[in-house]
Amino acid sequence: MPTDEAESGETLEDHVQQDGRDCVAAVDIGGTSLRIALADTTGDVVAEQSASTVGVRDAAAVIEMIRCGVIGLLGQSGRSRGNLCAAAAGAPGITDVDAGVVIATSYLMGWRRVPLRNLLETALEVPAAVENDVNLGAIGEQWRGAARNVRDFVFLAIGTGVGAGIVLDGKLFRGTDWSAGEIGYMLVPGTSTDPVADGDAGNLESLIGGEGIRAQWQKLWDAGGLDLPRDLRATEVFDQVRAGSLPAAAVLQQSARLLAFAIYNMWIMFNCPLFVLGGTVGMHPALLESAQSSLRKLCGAAAPDLAMSALGTQAQLHGAIRLALDRADAVRRDGI
Amino acid sequence: MPTDEAESGETLEDHVQQDGRDCVAAVDIGGTSLRIALADTTGDVVAEQSASTVGVRDAAAVIEMIRCGVIGLLGQSGRSRGNLCAAAAGAPGITDVDAGVVIATSYLMGWRRVPLRNLLETALEVPAAVENDVNLGAIGEQWRGAARNVRDFVFLAIGTGVGAGIVLDGKLFRGTDWSAGEIGYMLVPGTSTDPVADGDAGNLESLIGGEGIRAQWQKLWDAGGLDLPRDLRATEVFDQVRAGSLPAAAVLQQSARLLAFAIYNMWIMFNCPLFVLGGTVGMHPALLESAQSSLRKLCGAAAPDLAMSALGTQAQLHGAIRLALDRADAVRRDGI
Repeated sequence: MPTDEAESGETLEDHVQQDGRDCVAAVDIGGTSLRIALADTTGDVVAEQSASTVGVRDAAAVIEMIRCGVIGLLGQSGRSRGNLCAAAAGAPGITDVDAGVVIATSYLMGWRRVPLRNLLETALEVPAAVENDVNLGAIGEQWRGAARNVRDFVFLAIGTGVGAGIVLDGKLFRGTDWSAGEIGYMLVPGTSTDPVADGDAGNLESLIGGEGIRAQWQKLWDAGGLDLPRDLRATEVFDQVRAGSLPAAAVLQQSARLLAFAIYNMWIMFNCPLFVLGGTVGMHPALLESAQSSLRKLCGAAAPDLAMSALGTQAQLHGAIRLALDRADAVRRDGI
Repeated sequence: MPTDEAESGETLEDHVQQDGRDCVAAVDIGGTSLRIALADTTGDVVAEQSASTVGVRDAAAVIEMIRCGVIGLLGQSGRSRGNLCAAAAGAPGITDVDAGVVIATSYLMGWRRVPLRNLLETALEVPAAVENDVNLGAIGEQWRGAARNVRDFVFLAIGTGVGAGIVLDGKLFRGTDWSAGEIGYMLVPGTSTDPVADGDAGNLESLIGGEGIRAQWQKLWDAGGLDLPRDLRATEVFDQVRAGSLPAAAVLQQSARLLAFAIYNMWIMFNCPLFVLGGTVGMHPALLESAQSSLRKLCGAAAPDLAMSALGTQAQLHGAIRLALDRADAVRRDGI
């Protein structure tokens, strides 16, 4: 809904329908960083920036960073606020895209029922849309990444958290309460079967998310005899496999095996031919290779493809560009 | 496609558009039995029959049983072939509903690429439709069973086999190769992680399908000291729980726990509020109660509903009635 109508006498719909509006703003709100891009109406990025959000939890503060960032990028590309058509943002949490509300995010942000779409529309004075960040990654990969022309696929984001964006019959599937794809909670052979307390990592996530892999490594280290540092990030552990570390290879193999079990379960359930791996941990080539090998053993010749994200850490941002372009189109077409 | 056009000079479409056509034929082809129903245009059953298909594997023989059965039921209800609008059949296997072909069934039938829709249309001289039997169960429960007015739900059929009919955004989700919902293969804590050979029961199915539960019981029996028969069916084992058998209670608890893990995995993936349990094993009240209890421990207050099939062993047949009515409607409306 327009929120600036009373002041400017102009609706958000009027904005998009005016000439000269030649770009959209796309925002990826992460637990530790905020990425913003301006894209032209073909979706090509004309300017972008990234800033740290460490210590910034308050939604109003994040919105102010977005407002200033967008104005800065407009200036950098020789544009003004009058050039903006629409905006879209992804947040790391359960998002009601109809209401435009982020229902809940993880402990990093701690958001509860934040009306992100309204806040963006007020701050940027253009129509906006919001979506869960992993779902945006799936949209990005479908639009211009590894899942072009694939009707059914799953985008797996493995970083600190583990989640899936599920595209079925060509469309995102979000579930009754907007939380489909919470595969970090999956139970597979090797995970604990204990109930997960509110705010804790899911049973699969606590083993194959970034922190889970660190913990696997530290457990081996604590057992003694390792000549590598105790404090390695997940990707650093995987890097050590190529350098010949057997304990690192054991952590990789265990993680890849659990990941393959999870993918196998999604495969038999969705019968989809493609899984796209994204996120800092998910995009490590050693993990992909080892998971592919475990998966082939389970599935035989019918094994689905396991592809690395083609857009990398930009997948969500590209998804947000697509969403902002769609929002601008919808306003032009239907006035909504 | 009409196959009798040349002979009768009348297309299948002409059939439906003529007056006096007041019923549809619905068929549930099972591994051991064949059920046929005639229903009026409101979907009410006017006549039905069931016959054994033990030893009948050949598709032509099954079609002949269907043809004779339908003619018999038409006669019983004071009708003739001219009264039939359309037909639909469910088969226990992967079914390409667009092509009308049963791609593969289990060892019980051994069908490979059977053009079931064409065979039905030729035999019954009316437009026909085909579908996987578990999917038909889901359609039945959605239409007039336990899942009325529920947008996202899963129908779980647990008998000899274990499979799921998945309804998302109100529609069946079938997957890229028509084999979504093959949850008998799911890997959960407690299942084997060995690859499954072609034609063998899936890792979950081999524990909680009818034969799997028998095998669990026989394993306990072989360990000695049980005063009940070794040869009990799954439902008979569950019946013994109420009679106070501790070994039977152990088999029930283990089966219910594995089932709860599988439902939990589907729940976090689909975020759907309802699971409907069908099939002879799945409908045992002791299994439902024990699985519900395990599930509540895992999910807490947010646990999805676990409901017993409202249509029981008739779920598939009711789904077939709905499908046949839809087929007749489509022909009337669009001539397809």
